Parts: sequence; structure tokens; C-alpha cells
Amino acid sequence: MRAEFVNPFLASMLEVMSTMARLDLTPGKPQRKTDERALGDVSGLIGMIGPQTRGSMSVTFQKGLALEAMRRMLGEAPAEINEEVTDMVGEITNMVTGGAKRRLAEKGFDFEMATPMVVAGTDHSISHHAQGPRIVMPFESPFGRAVIEICFE
Amino acid sequence: MRAEFVNPFLASMLEVMSTMARLDLTPGKPQRKTDERALGDVSGLIGMIGPQTRGSMSVTFQKGLALEAMRRMLGEAPAEINEEVTDMVGEITNMVTGGAKRRLAEKGFDFEMATPMVVAGTDHSISHHAQGPRIVMPFESPFGRAVIEICFE
Repeated sequence: MRAEFVNPFLASMLEVMSTMARLDLTPGKPQRKTDERALGDVSGLIGMIGPQTRGSMSVTFQKGLALEAMRRMLGEAPAEINEEVTDMVGEITNMVTGGAKRRLAEKGFDFEMATPMVVAGTDHSISHHAQGPRIVMPFESPFGRAVIEICFE
Repeated sequence: MRAEFVNPFLASMLEVMSTMARLDLTPGKPQRKTDERALGDVSGLIGMIGPQTRGSMSVTFQKGLALEAMRRMLGEAPAEINEEVTDMVGEITNMVTGGAKRRLAEKGFDFEMATPMVVAGTDHSISHHAQGPRIVMPFESPFGRAVIEICFE
């Protein structure tokens, strides 16, 4: 997978978190996923299908960062990951993928987005089963970490 | 969502578990999802996009049932949910969705499948964020429960 495909997701994530939640995340270096698992507490997942490719994207948040994003968007945050939080993560997943889709369309790569799903559960991990390289993009913040993973065939 | 759309997933799940793992699950009554959450330990998720609709499907297993399926397929099972188990759940997700796709295509409903993702984590829950009814199909076995959820716009 080319950097051309990775950077649109990275840029879209930074933009969405900054404009929606006024949170400026610090991106780490994107890398090929090996065996290690990124654990998080709430994740948004979405499938993508294009004329030449298909794949999936996940964005996983540690609980502290998800709750801080809620607090900044709505003025208050629940103590735990509840339905309001999973709705927000579903919306973020749509917006990050939509932003990446726009950026990629400008370069001639097209895909359609399925509808997002959200997983809630302490320290879960996600694996992508497309037959292609899996790229991990870590994002740091004082409130916890977020990780995007993408995999395209 | 019509029963026409639900039954192909139900029939495909029974067939896949029976032929792959020699496990005869007992299906419960499919129902609209309300607030209650189906918790499980390993789930396969997949996005679907068709000309008139898009949506998502998840199949969630309790650990005991996932490990028993491994044991019956491979002759032995790991003690915990590891990469072999998540690979099997990704494969089951593909096969269940593929079987439903074939059955629906015969009735004139077409969709393309994205690639599956698998979530591992004790007692996680999944929510589907398509703008449509969410249907839950429970399956019982002596080794634990499985639950399929589908949601289409």
C-alpha cells in the first residue's frame, strides 16, 4: 500500500478531531502491522469497496481520549462508554473515512463506504482480514491514544 | 427489513457451522434490537454495499463456542482466543455473508461484500450505525451462544 493511500486517512483524522472536538492529536509514524495488537476501549469500523479494491478501516480510542472528545463536543462527558459515546465514535468513523474518500477521489482512487459499526469493550483488539498489508497509524494525546488501522486488497 | 432479508443469513449461519465445524446450533427467534446488548468474546464484522442499500453484519461468539468450533475443525483448540481463532472467525464471517449473498441474489437482491474484520476482547458489544432497523438472531449451543446482527439502510 502506497503512502498515497495512507496519508489521506491520517490527514482526515487530524482534521476531524480538531474541528469536531478541538483536540490536536500528535501523529506517530505509520507502519506495517506485525504481531503486536493495539488495544483500546471503543472502536469504529467500516468496510470500503471500490472498482479495483476493497478493504476496511478501524479507529480505536482509549477510554480517556473518547470521553475527553465527548466533553469537548458536548460540554460534558459520561463516566463510562455509553450509547452517546458509541454514536460519537460511529460519526467520527464516517467523517474520517469520508474525508479520506474525498482526498483519494482527487487522485483518481474511488471507493464506496459501507455503514459504520462500533465496538465497546475494555482492551479489545481488532484484526483486518483483507489480503493485503495492514497499516497502523498511532495518534497520541494527553488523554490517551487513538489508532487507525487500514487494510486494502 | 423483511424476513426475506433475515432468513438467508440465519440459514447460511446454520449451514456454515454445520459443515465447517459439525456444530448444529439451535436458532432463536430473530428480533428487532432494542437497548439490550449482546456480549461476546470474539466477533466477525463485515460491510456490504449494493445498488439500493448498504449495511453491516456481525457474528459474535462466546469464547466456549468459538473454541469448540476450533476443536471440531482442527482436532484441537487453543486455551484462549488467539490468532488462529480470529482467522477462523474471519473465515466464518466471509462464508456466512457469502452464503446469504447467494441466497439473496436468487431473489434479485445484490450486494458486494467488503473484507471482514475480527474483534477479540472479553464481553465486548457491537452496535450497527446504518439508518435502519437492527435485527438480532440468537443461536444456542451446549458450548455457548452466537449472535448475528444485521442492519441495512
